[in-house]
Amino acid sequence: MDALISRIKQDGTVLGEDILKVDSFLTHQVDPVLMRQIGRAFAQRFEASGITKVVTIEASGNVPAAYVAEELGVPMIFAKKAKNVTMNDELLTAEVYSFTKKITSVVQISRKFLSAQDKVLIIDDFLANGQAALGLIDILKAAGAEIAGVGIVIEKSFQSGRSLVEDTGIPVISLARIAGFEQGQVIFREADL
Amino acid sequence: MDALISRIKQDGTVLGEDILKVDSFLTHQVDPVLMRQIGRAFAQRFEASGITKVVTIEASGNVPAAYVAEELGVPMIFAKKAKNVTMNDELLTAEVYSFTKKITSVVQISRKFLSAQDKVLIIDDFLANGQAALGLIDILKAAGAEIAGVGIVIEKSFQSGRSLVEDTGIPVISLARIAGFEQGQVIFREADL
Repeated sequence: MDALISRIKQDGTVLGEDILKVDSFLTHQVDPVLMRQIGRAFAQRFEASGITKVVTIEASGNVPAAYVAEELGVPMIFAKKAKNVTMNDELLTAEVYSFTKKITSVVQISRKFLSAQDKVLIIDDFLANGQAALGLIDILKAAGAEIAGVGIVIEKSFQSGRSLVEDTGIPVISLARIAGFEQGQVIFREADL
Repeated sequence: MDALISRIKQDGTVLGEDILKVDSFLTHQVDPVLMRQIGRAFAQRFEASGITKVVTIEASGNVPAAYVAEELGVPMIFAKKAKNVTMNDELLTAEVYSFTKKITSVVQISRKFLSAQDKVLIIDDFLANGQAALGLIDILKAAGAEIAGVGIVIEKSFQSGRSLVEDTGIPVISLARIAGFEQGQVIFREADL
């Protein structure tokens, strides 16, 4: 997706060996105009797929996922990282290991929002080691839902996430694919959209 | 805001003495159509205020805040509850006490996204004891930004948040105001919009 790749080139910052910082438009400050374009791109790709729900994990995925859901005319669900006092329904849970934070956390979705009749599009802001996406896939499979695909805003193609997800038979559609970093510059691969 | 109040009546659940559960359209599953209406309502109220940024706290505030920002044509910033590896800039922080979780957490915004030239609209999903809003106000004041108002989706008017915010001189604009709960039903006060 050209608008996204231009924006990464313009405003992204490479930190160290393998970290891309995009806090000025995606992970801390959010550009709603770009989010709208992202929503349209995924919706166009999946408009004939009969999607009934868009699912993400809080928090950076929430806005792109909501725009995709709005464009597809379906609800968005964000998996929660912490249980709160209102979560008194049956929960579907998965353990997600974070390589950057080096901790395992439990993510959860109320079972009542998912059923075997659902066809789900997973959306997330980043795909690196794939642990978050695999956790969501576990939860959705436990609900018996069909998973149409995993839509990613920025994929770090030099890490194992994409192949781990594809090994489950679920297609990955990434708007920007990063082959690596060279001297502080981002090297892109051809994106899926 | 009539569409929101109807939705709370239809899909909200009262838990115990003072908890309203709206996980089917706001805090876990999200209805983008309602979020768009919420965005329009706040944008209409603040369109002549010269807002330059919309600010919220992750995660349930992110989607309504993004829609307000899109309608106003400005960026949205979500304060982060946990520091991550990419947050290597100077941070503005505030301690926020949660009465429901009984813990104090630190919320943070990178200073580079805020300046004394900014006029900010704070958006959040709930206003109860006001600690989250007061934390954001502290951060924005530390940046020298002007605060045009605090826009709230659902205000629990029987708790102290609204008066604590108004005591700082900043107006509170709530789309739904809850006077209390009686026999599992929500009793509304007149809303601000």
